Amino acid sequence: MISLKGLSAFPITPSNRDGQVDTGALRALLEPLIAAKVDSIGLLGSTGSYPYFSREERLRAVQAATALADGRTPILVGIGALRTDEAVRLAQDARDAGAAAGLLAAVSYTPLTDDEVFEHFQTVARESRLPICIYDNPGTTHFRFTPALIGRLGRVEGIVAVKSPALDAANLAGHLRELRAVVPGGVALGYSADWNCTEALLAGGDTWYSVLAGIFPRICLDIIRAVRSGDAARARQLDARLLPMWELFKAYSGLRVVYALANLRGICTAEPPRPILSLPADAQRRVQETVAALEID
Amino acid sequence: MISLKGLSAFPITPSNRDGQVDTGALRALLEPLIAAKVDSIGLLGSTGSYPYFSREERLRAVQAATALADGRTPILVGIGALRTDEAVRLAQDARDAGAAAGLLAAVSYTPLTDDEVFEHFQTVARESRLPICIYDNPGTTHFRFTPALIGRLGRVEGIVAVKSPALDAANLAGHLRELRAVVPGGVALGYSADWNCTEALLAGGDTWYSVLAGIFPRICLDIIRAVRSGDAARARQLDARLLPMWELFKAYSGLRVVYALANLRGICTAEPPRPILSLPADAQRRVQETVAALEID
Repeated sequence: MISLKGLSAFPITPSNRDGQVDTGALRALLEPLIAAKVDSIGLLGSTGSYPYFSREERLRAVQAATALADGRTPILVGIGALRTDEAVRLAQDARDAGAAAGLLAAVSYTPLTDDEVFEHFQTVARESRLPICIYDNPGTTHFRFTPALIGRLGRVEGIVAVKSPALDAANLAGHLRELRAVVPGGVALGYSADWNCTEALLAGGDTWYSVLAGIFPRICLDIIRAVRSGDAARARQLDARLLPMWELFKAYSGLRVVYALANLRGICTAEPPRPILSLPADAQRRVQETVAALEID
Repeated sequence: MISLKGLSAFPITPSNRDGQVDTGALRALLEPLIAAKVDSIGLLGSTGSYPYFSREERLRAVQAATALADGRTPILVGIGALRTDEAVRLAQDARDAGAAAGLLAAVSYTPLTDDEVFEHFQTVARESRLPICIYDNPGTTHFRFTPALIGRLGRVEGIVAVKSPALDAANLAGHLRELRAVVPGGVALGYSADWNCTEALLAGGDTWYSVLAGIFPRICLDIIRAVRSGDAARARQLDARLLPMWELFKAYSGLRVVYALANLRGICTAEPPRPILSLPADAQRRVQETVAALEID
């Protein structure tokens, strides 16, 4: 069974203006993540702009990633969609293309009830047989998973992990306790929102779903290793070094900053899908100065 | 130039499980709206579940509606999409199919900045030459239009109307004043959120974008006529009669209630697009009892 513990790196999905994925640039982004030995790759996550791509382009991206990883790194794939039938098809595509698991958000337009989200997840898991990570991302979907709903879903066959937003830094241990109490032991509990994830790991979280690791995997792996070896002081020291980066993520969103970083590093010249715009010149400069001062690679 | 004043009726879009629009059932819903002489029809609005349908199905729905209306009733069409290029194509399709205007929401997944939304709207208006109504619907898109942004957009060629949510019942006159101060005189300012729209009209709003009118147009037209004739007391009396319906809309969403109503009235047997579920049996019963007690038709 797939384990989604440790560092899951979430790259952008480079594409052209017409929404076609640039698989060459994608491979250039993924290669260093595989080489650095991240524990998994979160392809077509929110940072990978999954809802902005057609089913065909999403499949092309998954096929490029699984071919490149060739079994070395599990590929977790964003399979979220507004419609249940579309999410089922995306999950089936991902499974057939060799993805290790699907990352399923409660994508919504009409606000959804708990029963609707339960039914949606259950249907996708049942119809695809792809292991599913519950993607709780209220910042984009505006749906909030209660521990009660996570508990109901945690007992559905095929649901193997939860990705929660580490928004309440003061109560990560409490949040973890609440979720552990309601899900079976095998379900991995992990966090996103990079700036709080070192604390989430120290509180006992299984997985760091990281935007920064999609472009700078090594320093994130250093943090993971420090936590694993019980060296909380070193983990916090490394995290503190990244504070200027977290400020940029909070000010401009990780997605927009990582597009700027990928361009700065010469990996690709892609822009986010419109209406999302590249950062304005002054913000780009701030990103450039921050990376230079951080001396990370 | 298209005028979007008065009553704009927003029907559901009946479809099958696979997301194919049932144009026969759609015509059965639209015919009474045209016969009742609503001022416009808001096809494929949020109640019409526009983001849940493919471009092809949206076009089929618009073609069915414009053919049926045959110039008698202007068709306002939801053209929102996550991607700018897709919204442009939807606007062009709507224009070519004879729509009078496009209703454009700031559909988002990655939260958008004001500049991104401005650019999105400007591009769609420019590339389609379809008159555009700004659709401010934070309940579904989670983007909030400031008066400053409405002011910037109001000066863009082709932007002819604004549909705002009448959420702050106590400050409708103030909100209208704020918007009137920043948009050119020709821009129609209207409201949705049925339960506050009588007050919005009495405060001077130009348009009522109505979910209830998509299934019960006559009582809504009675309210419009009472407001137009200066009879605020009668308008409020009619609105008060509808209070039990507004309670249902607030409890279950207008969309889910109207699906139940359309089924109850035998107009169609459609269900909302999954993951949205039909109302559970107890709620259906409440809807049935409410309509029976209201004696509206």
